[in-house]
This record gives sequence, structure tokens and C-alpha cells, in this order.
Amino acid sequence: MIEVHAFATPNSVKVPIALEELGLPYELKAVNVRTGAQKEQAFVTLNPNGKVPVLVDGGLVLTESAAILVHLAEKTGALLPTGGAARARVFEQLFFHASALSPAFGNAGFFKRFSPEPQPIAEARFTAEAERILGLLDAKLAGQAFMAGDAFTIADIAHFGWLWRRQFPGLTLDARPNLSRWFETVMERPAVQRAIARVEALVEAPASA
Amino acid sequence: MIEVHAFATPNSVKVPIALEELGLPYELKAVNVRTGAQKEQAFVTLNPNGKVPVLVDGGLVLTESAAILVHLAEKTGALLPTGGAARARVFEQLFFHASALSPAFGNAGFFKRFSPEPQPIAEARFTAEAERILGLLDAKLAGQAFMAGDAFTIADIAHFGWLWRRQFPGLTLDARPNLSRWFETVMERPAVQRAIARVEALVEAPASA
Repeated sequence: MIEVHAFATPNSVKVPIALEELGLPYELKAVNVRTGAQKEQAFVTLNPNGKVPVLVDGGLVLTESAAILVHLAEKTGALLPTGGAARARVFEQLFFHASALSPAFGNAGFFKRFSPEPQPIAEARFTAEAERILGLLDAKLAGQAFMAGDAFTIADIAHFGWLWRRQFPGLTLDARPNLSRWFETVMERPAVQRAIARVEALVEAPASA
Repeated sequence: MIEVHAFATPNSVKVPIALEELGLPYELKAVNVRTGAQKEQAFVTLNPNGKVPVLVDGGLVLTESAAILVHLAEKTGALLPTGGAARARVFEQLFFHASALSPAFGNAGFFKRFSPEPQPIAEARFTAEAERILGLLDAKLAGQAFMAGDAFTIADIAHFGWLWRRQFPGLTLDARPNLSRWFETVMERPAVQRAIARVEALVEAPASA
């Protein structure tokens, strides 16, 4: 069975969402990032980069949440158009998420919450960039139902992870009507709710050995 | 003919490298990021995100350098394995580049060079992260010739952009023997040299209208 090494994190949740959407059975293995388990030797052997999630699919051990989404979509022939502009739009959003939204949200949260001393220019830089990105996505969603067009794809799953965890960088969707509508639509999907319940259960469960 | 809106930047150079490797003719359109042309209305109409590069391929206007690499590789059936673990490894590196190396290099450079006041914790954070990433890539290249295995792929082109521009964040490959060997191997490719010459010529040329 497919194994997913994960926790209730913005990047982790994407993988169970995709697996639930695709109807693929999987086993979740908790990696408690609050106690630093992702930096321990047992995990670093699996992913030298020391980050969740990791997918184990037969002999394939795969890191990087978006690469896992592409693998699962291509394995099943779903959630990713097979050609043309529709396919290119999905990759455009996957890389926009990875290179822009994800580091802006992560760094805004770090400088707001964890920096040992205030770094006001850094905090303002990443907060402004995160707000700029929210504005771009809200404008895009004024003209289309989902992130890469009119169909739900892995691009929506990728963006959902951090938008679900937007409290970490202290962001809201209050002034973003299109993005708010998109978020509610995705949140209502039964597969998304099942995946969230499963990753949240990892936080309460006793640590796995 | 394919148009590439670009400049001599880490992300821009990837697209001409891929086009030269694939033997596809293209026209380069200079977007002078030193004068802020990427934020002007004419360009923002093409890419609301205000970033180079942008590919125009027939009716498709595509942003995000790695999404462009995937599009060109799939269009031609080259530089990206069609299945299995070899394909997954390419996506893993494309997303590792986008989410880890690229923001670490970009932010390390910003806080070293452009921050209006020193932000020592931010500068140290991104410099340490960039060095950690160089270490991971050097370790990976101890066991394989290229970033995603034994063949040259778009994963090498993606990583090359920022490693070519490593002086911006003040990094070197001096203590990274495997990464140094990889860099020299890629740099020796005639297609890579042609692409670099073409993007560097944009900097000297008079600004296009």
C-alpha cells in the first residue's frame, strides 16, 4: 500500500487530499515536526532534505509535495489534463505556488512568530509579497472557477495547503471575495474533509516509533 | 515563431537553454528588469505577476520558467523521461529548485545587497539555507552525473540558472567538488553557451520599444 510520511502541515495535507480524490488507499505515517522528527536520522534517510511529505509507492520514494501530486495524477490519469493549454496552466500554477506563494507564506510566518529578534524589513517584505499573491489569485478567480481553469486539478490542491494554514503567516481572505468562494468550494469536497481529518488526527495520536 | 520575453536573469536563461538544446527557433524580446520594465503595463498585460520569462508559443502565453521547461519538453518529447521513477526524479528536482534553491538564493542576495537597513537574522537565515542546499546537491551529484539521474534533463537547466548567477547571493562552488564538476559539464554544452550569449546580448542592446 502507498505510504505517506506526513503531519498536519501545509505541504503534507496536499498528498492525502490527492489520494482521497483519486480513491487510492494509503497509510499515513506521522512525522512530528513539532518535536523535530523530520531532522532525525530515520527520516533523513528517507528524505535528506528533512521535510515532509514523503511518498513511498512500491519502490519509489518521492519527496516534494507538488512532484508527488504530478506522480499521482499521471499514475491515475486524473486531476491533470493530458495536453494543450489546460495542462500548461496546471504546471504554471504548481510552480507559482512553489516559487512564490509557499516561500512568501512560510517566511512571513517565520518573521512574525519565530525570529529571535524583530526583522521589520524582512517581515514587511514577505507579508507584502503574500498579500500581492493573494491579490493575483483573487483576480484570476474572478474569471474562472478553479486555479488552472474551469476544472478542479492538482493546482487547486497545491494552493489549498497554505491557504488552509493562512493563520500561520497571519493572513485572511476577508477582502478576497473570489478566493474566499474558491476556498469554501474546495473545503466542501468530501475528499478534502477526509484528508484534513486524517492529518489532524496525527497531531493528537501518540508519536509513532 | 516562439517568442521569449526575458533578460539576463537566473530564471530567464533557462528558456533559451531549453530551446537551444531542443533545436527550436525563437525570438528573444528584451525586458529590461534593471529599469523595471517587467512592472510596466505592456508587460503586466502579458504576465500579471510582473516577472520574466514569458513564453509565447502560438496562442499560448505561459509564465513560470519551470512550467515553460515542462511545456517545451513535452512538446518535443525530449529532456524529460516519459514515465517511471526517472520522470518523477525530474519533477522532484524542478520543485526542489522552485521551492528551496530559488527563494534561498534570491532572498540571500536581497538581504546582502538591497535591504535598506541590515537584517542580520534574515541574511544569515537565507545564506545558511542556500549553503545547506548546495550541500544537498553536492551529495546527490556524488552518485550520479546529473541532477535527476544519469541523463541531462530540464532539471539540470532549472538548477543551472541560479548556479550560473551565484555571485548575486555571494555563493561559491569552491568546497563542492561534485557540483563544480556538474557545473563545468553543463557550461561546456554548446547549446548552453549559445543561450547565455543571446541573453547577455540583451543587456548591451538598446531597449526595445
